[in-house]
Amino acid sequence: MRKPAYHIFVCTSSRITGQQKGYCHSKEGVTIVAKFMEEIEDQDLGGEVFVSNTGCFGLCEKGPVVVVYPGNVWYGAVTPADVEEIVTEHIKGGKVVKRLEI
Amino acid sequence: MRKPAYHIFVCTSSRITGQQKGYCHSKEGVTIVAKFMEEIEDQDLGGEVFVSNTGCFGLCEKGPVVVVYPGNVWYGAVTPADVEEIVTEHIKGGKVVKRLEI
Repeated sequence: MRKPAYHIFVCTSSRITGQQKGYCHSKEGVTIVAKFMEEIEDQDLGGEVFVSNTGCFGLCEKGPVVVVYPGNVWYGAVTPADVEEIVTEHIKGGKVVKRLEI
Repeated sequence: MRKPAYHIFVCTSSRITGQQKGYCHSKEGVTIVAKFMEEIEDQDLGGEVFVSNTGCFGLCEKGPVVVVYPGNVWYGAVTPADVEEIVTEHIKGGKVVKRLEI
């Protein structure tokens, strides 16, 4: 199979029980996922980049949390407004967005 | 922050809507997450290894899917019975479990 070059994991506080609660969920986690998907399409990165919603990363006080592999880069306090910068700078440009890194 | 050396992502078909359906969910995705957590504790890897449940990876026909970073290793048709081997061989031993790789 063809693997993604980048894999972006966005905490949406997805519980294995299906329950809809948790810090990142309450802070637009779902909107952040949607924004990443939109941005990846807009920047023509489909197939290269994969976006997944996840359960809690255990760092709620730093949320919403986004983790990018490869590189094991953890971003915190991410808002939908930060997504374009992460895709442009990090995913396309290869430069970690330092102001959001935790 | 201290980052995990390994991050294991298990598809539990976690929908951003909270809906509880999907192939990996129907094939014990949630039990696989629990088994990874148990095995990590039993093998004294807490803190080194992080386990996250995720939404669909889009490879349902190869599910349940487990993705391991670093390495971008994708496993398919994983069952709870395979978890101990993945932790022992791959996470502890550094050797990809070839028979499950997709």
